[in-house]
Amino acid sequence: MKWTSALIPTLKEDPQDAEVISHKLMVRAGLIRKLFSGAYSYLPLGKKVLDKIETIIREEMDAKGSQEVLLPAMHPPELWKTTGRYEVLGGVLIKFKDRHGKELVLGPTHEEVITDLVAGNVRSYKELPLILYQIQTKFRDEPRPRFGVMRSCEFIMKDAYSFDADEAGLDASYKKMFDAYCRIFERCGLPYLAVEADTGIMGGKTSHEFMVPCEAGEDEIVVCPKCKFASSKEIAKCGEVGNQVTRSPSHQVEQLPLKEVATPGVTTVEKVAELLKVKPSDLIKTLLYKADDAVVAVLVRGDYDISETKVKNHLKAAIFELADEKAIHKATGAPVGFSGPVGLKGVRILADNSVKGISNGVTGANKKDAHLVNVNPGRDFDAKEYGDFRVITADDPCPSCGGAVELRHSLEIGHTFKLGTKYSSVLGAKFLDKDGKERPAIMGCYGIGVNRIAAGLIETSSDKDGIIWPASIAPYEVVVIALNVDNEQVKKTSEEIYTQLAAARYDVIYDDRKESAGKKFKDSDLIGFPVQVIVGERNLKNGAVEVKLRKTGERKEVPVKDVTAYFASILKK
Amino acid sequence: MKWTSALIPTLKEDPQDAEVISHKLMVRAGLIRKLFSGAYSYLPLGKKVLDKIETIIREEMDAKGSQEVLLPAMHPPELWKTTGRYEVLGGVLIKFKDRHGKELVLGPTHEEVITDLVAGNVRSYKELPLILYQIQTKFRDEPRPRFGVMRSCEFIMKDAYSFDADEAGLDASYKKMFDAYCRIFERCGLPYLAVEADTGIMGGKTSHEFMVPCEAGEDEIVVCPKCKFASSKEIAKCGEVGNQVTRSPSHQVEQLPLKEVATPGVTTVEKVAELLKVKPSDLIKTLLYKADDAVVAVLVRGDYDISETKVKNHLKAAIFELADEKAIHKATGAPVGFSGPVGLKGVRILADNSVKGISNGVTGANKKDAHLVNVNPGRDFDAKEYGDFRVITADDPCPSCGGAVELRHSLEIGHTFKLGTKYSSVLGAKFLDKDGKERPAIMGCYGIGVNRIAAGLIETSSDKDGIIWPASIAPYEVVVIALNVDNEQVKKTSEEIYTQLAAARYDVIYDDRKESAGKKFKDSDLIGFPVQVIVGERNLKNGAVEVKLRKTGERKEVPVKDVTAYFASILKK
Repeated sequence: MKWTSALIPTLKEDPQDAEVISHKLMVRAGLIRKLFSGAYSYLPLGKKVLDKIETIIREEMDAKGSQEVLLPAMHPPELWKTTGRYEVLGGVLIKFKDRHGKELVLGPTHEEVITDLVAGNVRSYKELPLILYQIQTKFRDEPRPRFGVMRSCEFIMKDAYSFDADEAGLDASYKKMFDAYCRIFERCGLPYLAVEADTGIMGGKTSHEFMVPCEAGEDEIVVCPKCKFASSKEIAKCGEVGNQVTRSPSHQVEQLPLKEVATPGVTTVEKVAELLKVKPSDLIKTLLYKADDAVVAVLVRGDYDISETKVKNHLKAAIFELADEKAIHKATGAPVGFSGPVGLKGVRILADNSVKGISNGVTGANKKDAHLVNVNPGRDFDAKEYGDFRVITADDPCPSCGGAVELRHSLEIGHTFKLGTKYSSVLGAKFLDKDGKERPAIMGCYGIGVNRIAAGLIETSSDKDGIIWPASIAPYEVVVIALNVDNEQVKKTSEEIYTQLAAARYDVIYDDRKESAGKKFKDSDLIGFPVQVIVGERNLKNGAVEVKLRKTGERKEVPVKDVTAYFASILKK
Repeated sequence: MKWTSALIPTLKEDPQDAEVISHKLMVRAGLIRKLFSGAYSYLPLGKKVLDKIETIIREEMDAKGSQEVLLPAMHPPELWKTTGRYEVLGGVLIKFKDRHGKELVLGPTHEEVITDLVAGNVRSYKELPLILYQIQTKFRDEPRPRFGVMRSCEFIMKDAYSFDADEAGLDASYKKMFDAYCRIFERCGLPYLAVEADTGIMGGKTSHEFMVPCEAGEDEIVVCPKCKFASSKEIAKCGEVGNQVTRSPSHQVEQLPLKEVATPGVTTVEKVAELLKVKPSDLIKTLLYKADDAVVAVLVRGDYDISETKVKNHLKAAIFELADEKAIHKATGAPVGFSGPVGLKGVRILADNSVKGISNGVTGANKKDAHLVNVNPGRDFDAKEYGDFRVITADDPCPSCGGAVELRHSLEIGHTFKLGTKYSSVLGAKFLDKDGKERPAIMGCYGIGVNRIAAGLIETSSDKDGIIWPASIAPYEVVVIALNVDNEQVKKTSEEIYTQLAAARYDVIYDDRKESAGKKFKDSDLIGFPVQVIVGERNLKNGAVEVKLRKTGERKEVPVKDVTAYFASILKK
């Protein structure tokens, strides 16, 4: 491609609405443009990056024997109601009615549709195992789309689904997909981690998230540099012993008499602690949740956060969210901010293990503008259900080896789940086993965020000048920069090298613009082509051109006649 | 791919809801499955066909220097309101509100979005010409989805848009796309015709439809076998002289006195003619339309049909549809079925040229249960606007050479339009010309129905046994059929040939199922792989296999060692 024929609108300034580096650079390098918040147009260079990512995905998926399909984006809601996810997904699911008044939804994922498809077309164990995948646009009504293509309402997902006759089959399919994912992310040049994760709205029991650690990532993971343990922060186990015994300041002291104190308008842990001159860890934080149709209270030491994932999984709740003001008032008789376990009736109470070690603690009094002090678990309230309900912190020991852990922001680029029979049993994806007995297929599902691979690469591979692409997913592998197209020899040599490299099947763009050398260097560095061939009068006097590697900045003078051969040594085909 | 690992659910019976051959065979051959009326899942074989079609499209589009992009499926309605098509498309446009109450629409096409994109990123004539395309899922709320993937609510379209600095540029871009389309359809093996067409909701002035003549096609085109004239039936010119002069039975007779006759409950042309013992061609059919905000009456000879396209274009109306009962009553004072031009006040009247030749004709009396006889144009009513407002018939002369024409059902697979500045001027896609003057870009748009290429091929290439694919878009080029996998030599030879053909880069499937020879032949014929390599004990005794061509049924015994070489002679790579 010649630059003068291409649509590559680079920008000098960051877009005003961009907060993260990938968003800024994708816009500035002319890869994407915003249509509206949460929806982006891919310009030619951006589309080429997506294509290269998709090609790598297809190659690795096909290598594992999985087969590509294409399912509709519009779904009948009945399938989603059958699995209960019509309610669970709630506002994220985009719904509309057609001209005949029939409701349709736009697929944010395809477990329902693929299971229904397999239900109608697979009958015998002989037709299993089966792994089907697609690369397709998904739709989500995001509450707060942000960070460019990282969190958008419309995105490209590679979603795969495995169907097996037994658990051993699922394990084998899961391993195939896990291995394919590792290969895909490696080939895309991503520094990724596979971490243990929650199964969330998918259901099932085993799950891994593929994470790219980066500041802009919205998820936090916990990693142990010593034993390489890595996990989603929400599900990493927190030990029962340790911190609360050694650190709770009021442990093993005399239990003082319970007392109500006035705390007018003071509701947060920090402000209550300040007012009452105690530490946040002396508080028993009490939050009320709606779990399906019930209200539950969850207690945790004031300096910790409740892991909603752990609580939700413990309760096996489909819908789990913070109770609203009305429900809190109904349950406690008080406004938000004054809830506590003492005297709380008719509400199931779950207490994190960290609460056990608190003596003479502080809680809400279930009364407006009042808290209780000298609260002692066991004496003042009876929490029958203790468990691990909190989010791990950087001060906790590694759940695997006991060493020190680190928390890291990261971007989820892939997710794998062992689903079991959650979908197949209710949607009738059953098969006859060797003994002629009907059984539901054992399923797995496997997703990759295609756009997020591009964003994740940029988040982890850029410098002050722009993006640094690996050759595998760069918009072009090579740019031939003619420093001065008005010079006949420069022009002729540039065109020759461009033609030769293209003939040798390198993906090459020729910067034939009548622009200054400075502008050309800036644009190529910004877009981040891995290799630049710089053709200028000075080097041509020696019969040579300059080859620059974007990543290292390394430059080398290469004789014109050797350029194509030289490329074989720096770019694998 | 080995058949036993593949998902190929062939069916013996036609699906009950299928009316046309492509729908029946796509389901039976295991290419597609219905999710709901108007939405189909593509199974692995169907997806492979789509991929091959898309690859051909990309190659030909790229060869013309056009660049691929990817635009969002969800659009802000404001863009559609700016061009006026929010109203024009009406119910076809799928609309919904997001969680914040903001309306979004699903794109049935992308003129608005691409023009807005170019408006923001092109500034100078130096950046033109530009042709951008995408291959993407489109959404339409079809009033009556039918014929499998031929008319569905969700389909894959290749849509391209050209931007030029002047008319000559548009002509050049249009020609590039026209030529690319011819190449694409040829390579896909389609017997297509490029016909002159209406510009319809796109606007603009020149337009061609690419049509595949077939019984199941919903469009009708008119073709002249003599001079090769081909046109959409709706817009083909009907001569003023000729049929009405020579064939109108009551021409040049004495004008009789106007008379009202009772026609209780008789409203159709046929029934009125029967009751009054005249010919349909003696009637002046009068239909009332809503053209934007006005009501107009259109007259045509009773045996002809009004071309709504011609009338709409004549009126330059954005919205043009039959008036409803209420509007008819308001305009004529009578119910539907009794409209006529005599005494019709306050309504613009357009009369087709065929009405000129009618003497002593019959029309509605604008009065319930009454018609007028002996109606003479000029004497009894004054139609100031005569013109060509009817649909051509098989009895009309060729508009080009005057010879005999034929009407043919056909399926639209592509459409090209010269748009001019309709979109660029209102959406601000302007550039500075050589003199520094700001001007709107001159646009063209070009669409291909990807799924329809598959359907159109099957409509025109099948026999009683199934589909007959050309190698270019077949799900696999070759099937290796092992007649009896329990025979070691058959199995070994089949695997060897399969491996060799795959290594030689033929797209090959190996039927390794433990099924009867009959079942295997039936399935391969049904799916329609172009070449079958049949490996059986009998031929193996001579060291040979049988190669069968699906299209001709031709069979040839080929020595095992020569199979790959033989393929080079029958399949082009």
